[in-house]
Amino acid sequence: MSPLAAKRDTMSSTLTHNAYGKSGVRLTKVTRHGNRQEFKELTVNVQLEGDFALSYTEGDNSKVVATDSMKNTVYVLAAEHPLTDIESFGQTLAKHFIDKYSQVEGSSVHIVEHLWRRINFGGKPHDHSFVSAGDEKRTCTVHATRDKVVIEAGIENLVVAKTTDSKFSGFVRDEYTTLADAEDRIFATALEVSWTYSSPPADFNKTYETVRNTLLEVFANHLSLAVQQTLNAMGEAVLKAIAEIDEITITMPNQHRIAFNLAPLGKENKSEIFYAIDEPFGLITGTLKRNK
Amino acid sequence: MSPLAAKRDTMSSTLTHNAYGKSGVRLTKVTRHGNRQEFKELTVNVQLEGDFALSYTEGDNSKVVATDSMKNTVYVLAAEHPLTDIESFGQTLAKHFIDKYSQVEGSSVHIVEHLWRRINFGGKPHDHSFVSAGDEKRTCTVHATRDKVVIEAGIENLVVAKTTDSKFSGFVRDEYTTLADAEDRIFATALEVSWTYSSPPADFNKTYETVRNTLLEVFANHLSLAVQQTLNAMGEAVLKAIAEIDEITITMPNQHRIAFNLAPLGKENKSEIFYAIDEPFGLITGTLKRNK
Amino acid sequence: MSPLAAKRDTMSSTLTHNAYGKSGVRLTKVTRHGNRQEFKELTVNVQLEGDFALSYTEGDNSKVVATDSMKNTVYVLAAEHPLTDIESFGQTLAKHFIDKYSQVEGSSVHIVEHLWRRINFGGKPHDHSFVSAGDEKRTCTVHATRDKVVIEAGIENLVVAKTTDSKFSGFVRDEYTTLADAEDRIFATALEVSWTYSSPPADFNKTYETVRNTLLEVFANHLSLAVQQTLNAMGEAVLKAIAEIDEITITMPNQHRIAFNLAPLGKENKSEIFYAIDEPFGLITGTLKRNK
Amino acid sequence: MSPLAAKRDTMSSTLTHNAYGKSGVRLTKVTRHGNRQEFKELTVNVQLEGDFALSYTEGDNSKVVATDSMKNTVYVLAAEHPLTDIESFGQTLAKHFIDKYSQVEGSSVHIVEHLWRRINFGGKPHDHSFVSAGDEKRTCTVHATRDKVVIEAGIENLVVAKTTDSKFSGFVRDEYTTLADAEDRIFATALEVSWTYSSPPADFNKTYETVRNTLLEVFANHLSLAVQQTLNAMGEAVLKAIAEIDEITITMPNQHRIAFNLAPLGKENKSEIFYAIDEPFGLITGTLKRNK
Repeated sequence: MSPLAAKRDTMSSTLTHNAYGKSGVRLTKVTRHGNRQEFKELTVNVQLEGDFALSYTEGDNSKVVATDSMKNTVYVLAAEHPLTDIESFGQTLAKHFIDKYSQVEGSSVHIVEHLWRRINFGGKPHDHSFVSAGDEKRTCTVHATRDKVVIEAGIENLVVAKTTDSKFSGFVRDEYTTLADAEDRIFATALEVSWTYSSPPADFNKTYETVRNTLLEVFANHLSLAVQQTLNAMGEAVLKAIAEIDEITITMPNQHRIAFNLAPLGKENKSEIFYAIDEPFGLITGTLKRNK
Repeated sequence: MSPLAAKRDTMSSTLTHNAYGKSGVRLTKVTRHGNRQEFKELTVNVQLEGDFALSYTEGDNSKVVATDSMKNTVYVLAAEHPLTDIESFGQTLAKHFIDKYSQVEGSSVHIVEHLWRRINFGGKPHDHSFVSAGDEKRTCTVHATRDKVVIEAGIENLVVAKTTDSKFSGFVRDEYTTLADAEDRIFATALEVSWTYSSPPADFNKTYETVRNTLLEVFANHLSLAVQQTLNAMGEAVLKAIAEIDEITITMPNQHRIAFNLAPLGKENKSEIFYAIDEPFGLITGTLKRNK
Repeated sequence: MSPLAAKRDTMSSTLTHNAYGKSGVRLTKVTRHGNRQEFKELTVNVQLEGDFALSYTEGDNSKVVATDSMKNTVYVLAAEHPLTDIESFGQTLAKHFIDKYSQVEGSSVHIVEHLWRRINFGGKPHDHSFVSAGDEKRTCTVHATRDKVVIEAGIENLVVAKTTDSKFSGFVRDEYTTLADAEDRIFATALEVSWTYSSPPADFNKTYETVRNTLLEVFANHLSLAVQQTLNAMGEAVLKAIAEIDEITITMPNQHRIAFNLAPLGKENKSEIFYAIDEPFGLITGTLKRNK
Repeated sequence: MSPLAAKRDTMSSTLTHNAYGKSGVRLTKVTRHGNRQEFKELTVNVQLEGDFALSYTEGDNSKVVATDSMKNTVYVLAAEHPLTDIESFGQTLAKHFIDKYSQVEGSSVHIVEHLWRRINFGGKPHDHSFVSAGDEKRTCTVHATRDKVVIEAGIENLVVAKTTDSKFSGFVRDEYTTLADAEDRIFATALEVSWTYSSPPADFNKTYETVRNTLLEVFANHLSLAVQQTLNAMGEAVLKAIAEIDEITITMPNQHRIAFNLAPLGKENKSEIFYAIDEPFGLITGTLKRNK
């Protein structure tokens, strides 16, 4: 019996899952069409699963693709790729690791796009100057195995608020309840949304724009009886708008604005003066799936 | 046919998952034993699953326990609970929601403990004064359903480094590889660890201390051939040390320290001068399960 | 001799400066003009200086305005104030503390405005729904004493980038230099700008917009030979544009984008593939004053 | 008249202050004494003032020391320096820029030390393994001109709390006051402290330890009638303990813990159940100077 086999014999535990990769690969790509230039900034995370157990159990790295090499791969493939949308680039990357390395069984590529807008003077977008679009992110995750590729797209931190058309009443009232019914409250949230494509749309960028606009439109115009109800209405509207989306998950923190009690200070608060708190916050999530 | 049924008939999608709760409930409990006082600070997140779909689809909140009431519940139960360890308090909270509300099918309570140490003068711990133990957190997650309660405990952000006894070589070398073999490198990481109890240990606090010490001991003394190998050795050691732990998951970002190239500046770097980068970072994970 | 005088006699040190106040007062004001509603969110900091030494030296709080009362004051005055611009509200607040409390010799009110934009559908701004304008902030600081009131306005974290028209060459080259001359580099920064008014402009909001547009215009169109030079050109342009501004300070971190070296990977980098680093960063500052 | 002179003639503003430098230079130094190894991690900021106006006004960089060269300098000098304490290294760096470059009139070097502790097994500190001491930082700032060198040392984010021996009463009570007198409250803060040396002490490390212990001792044992009073007592104690310290500034945010109102929930809060808020917070500062 080999020493390795003997060691395993006496082992009281098994490595049941393992994965590794490189996170936080920051990529800037400038595409130069003469004077007019594109500026794209991404953070890429790669995670691989496969036949890597010997590195864990024996320190045998012979099948290990160094995470540094994954980082290099991101930059090399980015040089070759047009990078018009992150979903296509994510697919290219995720498939690359599957195709190139037989020991890789699954690869996940998560991309966060840091959004920039052209600086605009009198309606004319500048050729090579940009202003950050803020902390909202466009994201995608591509999971590839030898059998299939799943493309998820998403939006993180789309921060929105409405000053009316939001109620919350009729909930359970018992000995733990102190909250009053609200007939008209501020509704503020930071949307986190991801959706899965059953088939790639004709244009990932246009589809992303349509999803984003649809979310905003329902948020703005919905008469909300609960955060849950608005979430559901937003999900339904997206599934109606885009046939290639199979499933959507929306998470909505309820970023509370609380009326400041002016009464002890001798004033009335005519639903005008509030304060924001970061904690605690409600957290509401829901997943909607297209009926077949 | 009722209008509601008609509406559902024509719906093209289904709400396949929903959950909601309160996050970021910050609890400070002072326990006063005469002069000697205990000071415990937690952040509690509660999430409930169950029969809440009508709030999403119809805005009917009659089964909804307000997240504000969940917050109240945390404070009320904390007043009654000794709070000697977060795992017991997590169980109490998670079971409460299941027992109290028939519409709740599953409850998850995640607790983060912000660690404080007594201020110490000449070896004598002060009765009522404390200093923060930093950004390392003790955590637990209790998942309760009517059938069972699963207790996970954990450690977040245990930041450690060793200046030698870490190698990395023999990995795949191909056209994407520029990393040299490392015979002696700095190994720095921020451990994120969680483990599941098959049965509650006699003392959650002692068990937590044993897990933490075991992790540190293996990290310090292991001759590492790969981050993966050290991770595996740490997991095995914890499973050997604590019989009640069934499974452990460890995640280790590889927080790179890179030798600064002094050669162009006319000096030799005798493996003394490095710089830290936050991004990109390797990210290694593994789950070990006790063999039955 | 009173015991207090005796104590002071033997004191070996003097309290040479003291100040205190309330920071992080988060104010949301909704102004309801029928269907059309305004939504303004601020964080307010108040600091007072004056005759407060006895609280420090003796624990005598008889002249201390509690920071909790300062917080209340912010909300009470906000209820009465139209809040069309933060500079006016800052003046009202700063003067209030001077006028109300004889022991206050100086008050500083710093306001950060969290910017929101109306959600826009087909060019039509929504009546009551808003989307965050990101992490850029509009700020002001008002310093009031019995003699005068100084109004500073500012912009924090205006994140901009240009992909060309930025050079850096001809700098000191010695034994500590490894940086090559750059004839065409990416220029990215997060502007922090503050300016002082010699007299209040007719409209603080319009003036703020003009300053912001002027900064963007110079940033975009300047052929930069150094970050320093662009900074100076931006300051000069603002002073030319707005007669009421006496002085402007601009701070520009140089958020480096570094060309990724593809050569060892067998590819050429045609000035297209870069990576961003957060640290280290250049930090350039300058103050320009209007000539009398 | 030269074109440059002509341009200046027509200029309506003057660059009254300028400075630039490199921030966020992250330095790791490993000192290897055989098996026993030291591990030190710093973040260094350098700012220079001097004859740099032409870079701002004309884009003439001939006197500009590139910030990249400053970064190189930090690493080169760190290789030569024992780095036993940051104050000595700060002096070396600050003086270097003054001595090396005649155009530099003032240099400021700010160093933040990220604190690590040896991992300890049974009281025995490990030779080469370390655990982060958390988010508390040791700092120093050295300002050098041709005439003098000023050394400031400091502590950032020393987070402490006490559960009793803190009162606050007798403050101004008027129409803006809702806060009740507190006879026994939680006192929690994150100390920010800096002090100036009139002459270098024999051992910067020992002095730092003495200052830190003195601050903790007074915080723990002081019967506080106001945050202001505790602050003053801490400052006085440090000035008494260390003769070489001339001046000390202490800033103490009052990190409020607020009693949770259990009464509407049918329970009494026996001063046991609190919640922490991050905002708003009191902010108290004071500077004490040694009497001559």
